[in-house]
Amino acid sequence: MQEKEAAILLISCPDKKGIVATVTEFLHKNKGNIISLDQHVDTQEEVFFMRVKWDLTEFIIPKIKIGEYFQTLIADSFNMNWQLTFSTERLQMAVFVSKMSHCLYDLLSRCDSGELRVDIPLIISNHKELEHIAQKFNIPFEYLPITPENKKEQEAKELELLKKYKVDFIVLARYMQILSDQIIEEFKHKVINIHHSFLPAFPGAKPYHSAYERGVKLIGATSHYVTAELDEGPIIAQDVTSMDHKNSIPDLVRKGRDLEKIVLARAVYAHVRRKTLVYKNRTIVFD
Amino acid sequence: MQEKEAAILLISCPDKKGIVATVTEFLHKNKGNIISLDQHVDTQEEVFFMRVKWDLTEFIIPKIKIGEYFQTLIADSFNMNWQLTFSTERLQMAVFVSKMSHCLYDLLSRCDSGELRVDIPLIISNHKELEHIAQKFNIPFEYLPITPENKKEQEAKELELLKKYKVDFIVLARYMQILSDQIIEEFKHKVINIHHSFLPAFPGAKPYHSAYERGVKLIGATSHYVTAELDEGPIIAQDVTSMDHKNSIPDLVRKGRDLEKIVLARAVYAHVRRKTLVYKNRTIVFD
Amino acid sequence: MQEKEAAILLISCPDKKGIVATVTEFLHKNKGNIISLDQHVDTQEEVFFMRVKWDLTEFIIPKIKIGEYFQTLIADSFNMNWQLTFSTERLQMAVFVSKMSHCLYDLLSRCDSGELRVDIPLIISNHKELEHIAQKFNIPFEYLPITPENKKEQEAKELELLKKYKVDFIVLARYMQILSDQIIEEFKHKVINIHHSFLPAFPGAKPYHSAYERGVKLIGATSHYVTAELDEGPIIAQDVTSMDHKNSIPDLVRKGRDLEKIVLARAVYAHVRRKTLVYKNRTIVFD
Amino acid sequence: MQEKEAAILLISCPDKKGIVATVTEFLHKNKGNIISLDQHVDTQEEVFFMRVKWDLTEFIIPKIKIGEYFQTLIADSFNMNWQLTFSTERLQMAVFVSKMSHCLYDLLSRCDSGELRVDIPLIISNHKELEHIAQKFNIPFEYLPITPENKKEQEAKELELLKKYKVDFIVLARYMQILSDQIIEEFKHKVINIHHSFLPAFPGAKPYHSAYERGVKLIGATSHYVTAELDEGPIIAQDVTSMDHKNSIPDLVRKGRDLEKIVLARAVYAHVRRKTLVYKNRTIVFD
Repeated sequence: MQEKEAAILLISCPDKKGIVATVTEFLHKNKGNIISLDQHVDTQEEVFFMRVKWDLTEFIIPKIKIGEYFQTLIADSFNMNWQLTFSTERLQMAVFVSKMSHCLYDLLSRCDSGELRVDIPLIISNHKELEHIAQKFNIPFEYLPITPENKKEQEAKELELLKKYKVDFIVLARYMQILSDQIIEEFKHKVINIHHSFLPAFPGAKPYHSAYERGVKLIGATSHYVTAELDEGPIIAQDVTSMDHKNSIPDLVRKGRDLEKIVLARAVYAHVRRKTLVYKNRTIVFD
Repeated sequence: MQEKEAAILLISCPDKKGIVATVTEFLHKNKGNIISLDQHVDTQEEVFFMRVKWDLTEFIIPKIKIGEYFQTLIADSFNMNWQLTFSTERLQMAVFVSKMSHCLYDLLSRCDSGELRVDIPLIISNHKELEHIAQKFNIPFEYLPITPENKKEQEAKELELLKKYKVDFIVLARYMQILSDQIIEEFKHKVINIHHSFLPAFPGAKPYHSAYERGVKLIGATSHYVTAELDEGPIIAQDVTSMDHKNSIPDLVRKGRDLEKIVLARAVYAHVRRKTLVYKNRTIVFD
Repeated sequence: MQEKEAAILLISCPDKKGIVATVTEFLHKNKGNIISLDQHVDTQEEVFFMRVKWDLTEFIIPKIKIGEYFQTLIADSFNMNWQLTFSTERLQMAVFVSKMSHCLYDLLSRCDSGELRVDIPLIISNHKELEHIAQKFNIPFEYLPITPENKKEQEAKELELLKKYKVDFIVLARYMQILSDQIIEEFKHKVINIHHSFLPAFPGAKPYHSAYERGVKLIGATSHYVTAELDEGPIIAQDVTSMDHKNSIPDLVRKGRDLEKIVLARAVYAHVRRKTLVYKNRTIVFD
Repeated sequence: MQEKEAAILLISCPDKKGIVATVTEFLHKNKGNIISLDQHVDTQEEVFFMRVKWDLTEFIIPKIKIGEYFQTLIADSFNMNWQLTFSTERLQMAVFVSKMSHCLYDLLSRCDSGELRVDIPLIISNHKELEHIAQKFNIPFEYLPITPENKKEQEAKELELLKKYKVDFIVLARYMQILSDQIIEEFKHKVINIHHSFLPAFPGAKPYHSAYERGVKLIGATSHYVTAELDEGPIIAQDVTSMDHKNSIPDLVRKGRDLEKIVLARAVYAHVRRKTLVYKNRTIVFD
C-alpha cells in the first residue's frame, strides 16, 4: 500500500495547559492533516508526551524548515524535547549475532516481505556459525571474535564499521557479548536487545536454567534499550508463554525461541515506526 | 483516591481537518484542563471519533450550559454526534440473571469494593435460585418467570420496573432469555450481554458443547451490546483460554465461568467509564 | 454431576524401571478401573512422579486397608512417598484476609456454586473491614489484630482456632501479615498464598509500585505454597496481563485484582483436587 | 543433545480395564524403559488413547519385529489401532506456498536450526514469487500454476512429485489453492494447513476482512489436518492475539502473520514428534 509522505513528531515536556491545542492549531493552520495523534500525561511526574503524524501533501512549511519553525514558534515556550522524522526515511539497521539463528532469520524474513522498512547493511558476529545466512541474503558479515585481550580493539573496529555503513540503530539478536560503554553512549536508546526472561526476573546468564530451578509456570522474553547497566534498560516489549513440570530445560529453550523472536520484532517495529519515547527508565510505546 | 469532577465528551462525526484543534482550543480557552484525549479516525469510513476528559475546577462554562455551548459553537459546524457526561454521575444498573451465580457475585463484589461506581437498584430473574444472593446484598429481587404464554406480559412488568428504579443500563449476567425488541430499543446500546463463546463462533445455545464437538483448542467469551439479532451486536470485550483433549464439557463450563465473569466485567467497566462508542456494528473502546 | 467414589494416589520415588507396570497391575488385579493416570519423570533429578485415580466400586481391597496393602506390597520396594485420598472427602479450608475483598468474594462464590468442594469453617483477619462479608455467608469471623507486641500470642490463638475447626489447609487471600514459622511447619505445603507479582520479580511489599517504576509491559500474580522464606515457596499457578504507559498505579491495582483472584482460585482448585505434588522447591501440577 | 533411539507407540481402542497395565507390563518384561507415557480416556465416547515412548537400548525384541509381536500379543485382544515409529526416523516434508513468505521462512529457519527434524525435498507453488527463497536454501522449487482448465493435470504432476521425492507429509504454508480430493485421501491426516482465523469463525476467503467487519477484539489462526470439507478438518493448534478499533485491515494482516507462523510451526512440531492422534473430527495432541 503506497503511503503519502507524512511527518512524525515525538514530543515530551513539562505538563501545562494548552499543549494539544497549541500543537494541533499549528498543524491545522499550516494545512497539515493529522493522520494520528496520541498523547499521554504522566500525572505522577507531571510530564506530557505526544506523538502526532500528519500528511505533508498540502503542508505549507517546507520539510527542511519544519524543525526550525516548530522550535521557534512552539517548542521554546513549552520547553519541549522533540524529534521530527519523515515516513519516507529508511533506517540502516545493524544486527549483532552469536550462534543462534532464529532471531536473525526472523528479522531477515520481515525485511524481505517489506514489513520492516529498514536496510541491513551489516551483520556483526563474534562467531562464524551464522555466516552462511548472511551469504544467503547477500549481507556483509563481519567476524569479530572477542577475547578479554582483544575486546577493546575489536569494539573500536565495530564502531568504525557502524560509521562506515551509516548505521542508525543496532539490534542485538541473541548477541552473547556485553557492548562497550562507548557504543552504548554513541547509540543512546538506539541499541535494542532481546533478553530471554521476563525481566526483572532472571537477569544475566542462563535464565532458562534459573526459571527451571525456581519452578515458574510461565517463561518470558523482554526487549529493551541497552544501557550501561546489564538487563536494566527501558523495556519496549515483553511476552510470556506457559510451561509446566513436563518441560525440561531444552523444552524451555525451544519454546523461548518463539517468544524471543516475536518480542524482539515487536520492539524493532515500534522503534522503526517512531512509536517509542524513553522517559526515565520507562519506554512509552504509542500504538 | 478522590478525583476532581471532570467532564467527558464522546464525539463522532465525518472526518475533516481541524477537529482536534477546534475542540482542544475550545476547552483551553475556557480554562478546561485536559486530563486525557483519545481520537481515532476510521480511514475506511472517513469517520472521526474522540473522547476527551477535562477537569471542571476552573472551567468557566457552567456544567448545565456546556452542552448548549458546545452544540452551538462547535458541534453544528462539524455535524457531530456527541454525548456529555460527568465523572460524578452514578449510573443505575439492573442485573438480569437466571440460575448461574458467578457473574452476579462478581459484579456485586466489584460494586462492594468501589471498583464499579454504579448502584444496583434491582435484580430481575426468571428463576428463584439466586434470590438468596440478592438478599445477602439487600437488593430488590424480582422473580418474573417466563413462559411462551406470559412472555409479553412479563416483559411489560420488566419495563415498568426498569422505569420505576430509574435504570440507566442493563447487564444480562447469564440471563437465559431473549429480551423483547421493545426493551432493546428503549435501551439501545445500553444492554450488555455475556455470551459463552468466542463470537462469531458458536452463537446460540450450548456453545461449550459445540466447542467440544468441533475440537477447538481455545474457548472464549464475548461481551456485546444487545441488538435485535441474537449474538450479533457490537462486541465490547472478548477473551479466550486454552483447552485440550483432556477437558470434558464440564471442564469447559468451569473454565468458561472465569472467562465469562472477567470479560463481562471489562465491558461493564468500559461502559460505566464512558469509554465506548458504537459505530455501525463495531464498538470503539478507548483505553 | 454425581461422581462415583474414587481413590487418588499421589506417588514420588527414585526413578526405576517398571513402576507404572507394577502400580497399574496392582490396581487392575484388584478390580480397580483407572479413571486417569499421569506420570512424570524428572530426568535431571531421576525422580518418578505419578497421580492415579481409580473407581472404587468394584475394588476388592476395603478403603481403610488400601494404604496398608499398598505400603506392604509396593511402596516399600520402590521406596515411595505417597498420599492416598478419596474423592468423597471434603476439606476444611480456613481463609485469612486483611482489608481487600476480591479474593474472599471469589472463593465464597466458588464454594457457593459447588465448584470448590470445601467447607469454610472460619475466616481469620487482622482487620475488621471484611466482617460484613463473613456475616453475609454465615461464617465465623475471628478478628485477631496483630502488633509487634501481641504477634506471638495472637498466633497461638490462630493455631488453636485452626485445630478447633479441624482446618485441613489455609488460604491467604491477600492477608498482609507474615505467618509464624510454627503455623507454616504444622501446615507444611498446606498454606496457599497469592502474591501480586510475577515471582521471582518484585517479591515483598508494593509490587505494583515496583512494576510501575521498572516500566514492565506485563503485570502478574503468583500463587504458591508458603514456606519460611517470604515469597520463595513452590509456585502452583501464575498468570500475567498486559499494561502500558497509560496505566497508572491504581490501574495496575485494579487489573491485578482480577489476576489475583483467578490465579489463587486455580491453585486452590488444584490443591483440593489433589493434583499437586511438591518436590524440592517446585510444584508438579497434574492437569 | 544426543538422544538414545526410542520407539513411540500411538494407540487408540475401545476403553476397557487393564490396558495400561497390559501395555506397560509388555514393555517392562522385555526391558524397555518407559521415557514417557500419556493416556487419555474419552469417557463420552468410551475410547482409550495412549502414547508411550521407550528406550530401545536394552529392549529384547528387535526393531523390525516389535510391530508383529505387539499385534499378536496385545493389539488383537484389545482391538487396537496403533502406529509404531522410531525417534531416529527422519520425515520428508513437502511445503506448498503461494506468494506469502513468512511461514516458509519460519519453517526453513526451524529446519536449519535442527528444531524440526525433517528434510524438505520439495517446495511446490502456484506462483513464482518465492522461488528465490527456495534457491537460497537449495531446495527444488516446482512452479505449477493452477487454472480451472489445468487444475486436474497439475495435480497429477503434484502427486507424481510427491511420490518421486518420497514425501511423508505436506504443509500448506499459506497455499491459496484447494487441494484435490485425491491428494487429501492419499495423504490422510498428513496434510497440515494454516488458516488465518480462529476457526470455526471466519472460514473461507478473506478472514481478516470479515474479522474487521464484525468488530472482534481478538484475531486468530488455526492449524488443522486437511479433509475434503474446506476449513473443517481436525484442529491441531490455535492461538489468538488482541486487536482494537485502531487496527486497520493491513494491521490485522501484519499481526496475523506472526500468529500464523507460530501456530503452524506448533502443529508441524507435534506431527513430526508423533504427538497427534485423530479421532472423529478432533485431534488429540499429547504434550
